Amino acid sequence: MAKEITSREENYSQWYLDIVKKAGLADNSAVRGCMVIKPLGYAIWENMRDQLDKRFKETGHVNAYFPLFIPKSFLSKEADHVEGFAKECAVVTHHRLMNNPDGSGVVVDPSAKLEEELIVRPTSETIIWNTYKDWIQSYRDLPLLINQWANVVRWELRTRPFLRTAEFLWQEGHTAHATRDEAIEESKLIHEVYARFAEDFMAMPVIKGSKTANERFAGAEETYTIEALMQDGKALQAGTSHFLAQNFARAFDVKFMDENNKEQYVWASSWGVSTRLVGALIMTHSDDEGLVLPPKLAPTQVVIIPIPKPLPEIMEKAEQLKKELEAQGVRVKIDKDAKKRPGFKFAQYEMEGVPIRLGLGKRDLENGTIEVARRDTKAKESIDIAGVVPHTVQLLVDIQDNLLAKAKQHRVDYTTEVNTYDEFKDAIENKGGFVMAHWDGTSESELKIKEETKATIRCIPDDFVEEEGVCVYSGKPSKGRVVFAKAY
Amino acid sequence: MAKEITSREENYSQWYLDIVKKAGLADNSAVRGCMVIKPLGYAIWENMRDQLDKRFKETGHVNAYFPLFIPKSFLSKEADHVEGFAKECAVVTHHRLMNNPDGSGVVVDPSAKLEEELIVRPTSETIIWNTYKDWIQSYRDLPLLINQWANVVRWELRTRPFLRTAEFLWQEGHTAHATRDEAIEESKLIHEVYARFAEDFMAMPVIKGSKTANERFAGAEETYTIEALMQDGKALQAGTSHFLAQNFARAFDVKFMDENNKEQYVWASSWGVSTRLVGALIMTHSDDEGLVLPPKLAPTQVVIIPIPKPLPEIMEKAEQLKKELEAQGVRVKIDKDAKKRPGFKFAQYEMEGVPIRLGLGKRDLENGTIEVARRDTKAKESIDIAGVVPHTVQLLVDIQDNLLAKAKQHRVDYTTEVNTYDEFKDAIENKGGFVMAHWDGTSESELKIKEETKATIRCIPDDFVEEEGVCVYSGKPSKGRVVFAKAY
Repeated sequence: MAKEITSREENYSQWYLDIVKKAGLADNSAVRGCMVIKPLGYAIWENMRDQLDKRFKETGHVNAYFPLFIPKSFLSKEADHVEGFAKECAVVTHHRLMNNPDGSGVVVDPSAKLEEELIVRPTSETIIWNTYKDWIQSYRDLPLLINQWANVVRWELRTRPFLRTAEFLWQEGHTAHATRDEAIEESKLIHEVYARFAEDFMAMPVIKGSKTANERFAGAEETYTIEALMQDGKALQAGTSHFLAQNFARAFDVKFMDENNKEQYVWASSWGVSTRLVGALIMTHSDDEGLVLPPKLAPTQVVIIPIPKPLPEIMEKAEQLKKELEAQGVRVKIDKDAKKRPGFKFAQYEMEGVPIRLGLGKRDLENGTIEVARRDTKAKESIDIAGVVPHTVQLLVDIQDNLLAKAKQHRVDYTTEVNTYDEFKDAIENKGGFVMAHWDGTSESELKIKEETKATIRCIPDDFVEEEGVCVYSGKPSKGRVVFAKAY
Repeated sequence: MAKEITSREENYSQWYLDIVKKAGLADNSAVRGCMVIKPLGYAIWENMRDQLDKRFKETGHVNAYFPLFIPKSFLSKEADHVEGFAKECAVVTHHRLMNNPDGSGVVVDPSAKLEEELIVRPTSETIIWNTYKDWIQSYRDLPLLINQWANVVRWELRTRPFLRTAEFLWQEGHTAHATRDEAIEESKLIHEVYARFAEDFMAMPVIKGSKTANERFAGAEETYTIEALMQDGKALQAGTSHFLAQNFARAFDVKFMDENNKEQYVWASSWGVSTRLVGALIMTHSDDEGLVLPPKLAPTQVVIIPIPKPLPEIMEKAEQLKKELEAQGVRVKIDKDAKKRPGFKFAQYEMEGVPIRLGLGKRDLENGTIEVARRDTKAKESIDIAGVVPHTVQLLVDIQDNLLAKAKQHRVDYTTEVNTYDEFKDAIENKGGFVMAHWDGTSESELKIKEETKATIRCIPDDFVEEEGVCVYSGKPSKGRVVFAKAY
């Protein structure tokens, strides 16, 4: 296995691409901006999906599925929405190909032009609210708590695997409520579900907060976000939950009779996370040797490698260990390949981020020992084989905790409070990370700062502290610090 | 709840549409031919997906994800394939909308025309084999055993929810092998997985067999199929597994070095089942009162209804029963709605096909009894509440078995052996069902029969019995009977 990957210090961006390629997470495809998600990348996404799906269901949501296509006219119905999405979308105009009369292959059949063009969904608010119109008549039909797992397409110009691709996989929740408060409560509930998932499963600490008006979802009255900090000091928006007020209900004329027999527009939320999380996972934990995966999301948590090769007596013990570990709920693989050397395998599983490697040799069997290597710290130790199962189970917990602790410490190290614009620019330019600064609350200052430094307001944090101060840009009064950073 | 659904006898086709609508399985959408899969319909599909996914993984397959779009030129590379799919596809020609200068909304931006049109995948052989070219160099890279869960689009003219829709959900397996035999073995393995799933989970008996050349997948050398019989006597192709020989490897130039260092084209299989199975499930078991679901696929297996309403003492017992049933792996729901009457709820769960209904009344509590109603036979009995948990667990098994037995008996009743063309036409026209008839093996006779009777050869059954005879159509010699039917 060719192991050379660019070091993070040399070129973080190339390091990321190398990890994606060498760990077998994704591949480029023949279609501009679309990636192929390879088995390891997809298995990580499946684990994320299953965990999130479980949490959505526990909080009362159900899944459904809405059409891939959106009639063009639907996009125009919500003014901000069309502004946000019309510029980058795949447009279906015909429904048939035909043989080229010149025999050179197939061409679009001009007679098969659609009456109205269809857009491949960039997000589904419009088609879903058009459907909800038929589903909602009375307060008894509310709330609707529906989620969809789907692919969406946004015609991005500059793409990067997982982080920004023309097609990506995601979930999008779309809920309908009788009151404003209930819709806000729902979007906050999911905001919390996302934050808990990021910390508890991805071992990725996040700042919870609200977006400024400029950074809000096209059509939302409020956007709640979780913001993570990558190793290179750039922020990554990892999930958003939107309070949509009555905007889509008005656009699609969705009303209900309330308990007092009064007609009202329905209140809405929508929320989503995507395969982008796989990119966030990579850039939170991985190192110059390859991928590092938190045990809770690792498709394979433990790999057992027979040394020097899969001899019968070693395999017998390996199978027994596998069975015992699986009985504890551990996902285990034995590498039975007789053609590859152990050293090669070590490098491979290091690259693929398997949290624990158990090396089981002939000598070990005689001595009653086994070698336990952890991926995160690369520490190795030889332990009594009799205790390896409980040791491994505990080590998976320790690795998960260690990754979170490390990421939290990184965030502490790369969070800077500044009080002047010079300090601000210095921090953004030279140190990176989250920069906590006073802001006057105006769009004007926000946009000027973005223009001059490329830093954006990631969020107004939920734990916003009231503190008198002056905006680093304008010098006008400010009531507290918000979170700035350059972002993916 | 409005319960009127058309009876099967009156109009089977309308009955089907009524069930889909009234049980809340799917809805029409604003996009021609695309359905909205509602929560109950989607939950059934999720259960199918989870079961199949488990079986695929147990047989060594992994999931991955390939792009939604296929460059137009790819479709031309396999001659039969383009013939089969180019006529009914969604073509993306542009990547941007713009505001109409006249202010009337948005229009396609003519300057954003794609250099090469993209087809929304009708199936993914082409894009996948184009990718496999990069993944396969040596016999060491084989086999590749990859499956994808995805949406696909085929621009069907006449659509019906689940059975035939422009967009549908499915899984498509695409495997690559070093030898012809191994690829055939793989396609047969999946053929068997499909048949077992249909019988064991859907309680839907199927005939396993091979398609004739006319009915094969576009690009396959052999298509294995499972054919089910619906209540109205029409056949339904429920899943297919294709041996693709080296057709796609040649089209996309995918070669490997074998163990003797000789370059060879790769051998392939592909296989898929879709949301069509939900339609098959409906038409196998449901009745004039609504949906009937086999317990193994029912999202809710048991519903507990407090009678006359959710009084505290009844709810306490209901919660206890729920907990005990869940501990046995049963999916249980308590209907806590205080506003609806029990009779209304009975009708609703009957419509939605919940296999077992437990009615828990005040009187029951005093007497230590509970009412158990099964959906399949509509039998009701009052039993000692102390034994209700094991009784319910066993009853779920019995219902599953009963549905399969009933469907098998239906198939026996509607399978007819015929020896003349008159008998053939009579059976096809007046009785329906599977018609076992001698066929001379020619495409000519097959097509003539189809033209004259609308019956097609569903398959040459795996349990084909060698038997001298003459073709019912041509009178030419035949070696055995094949399975004819009119089909969905």
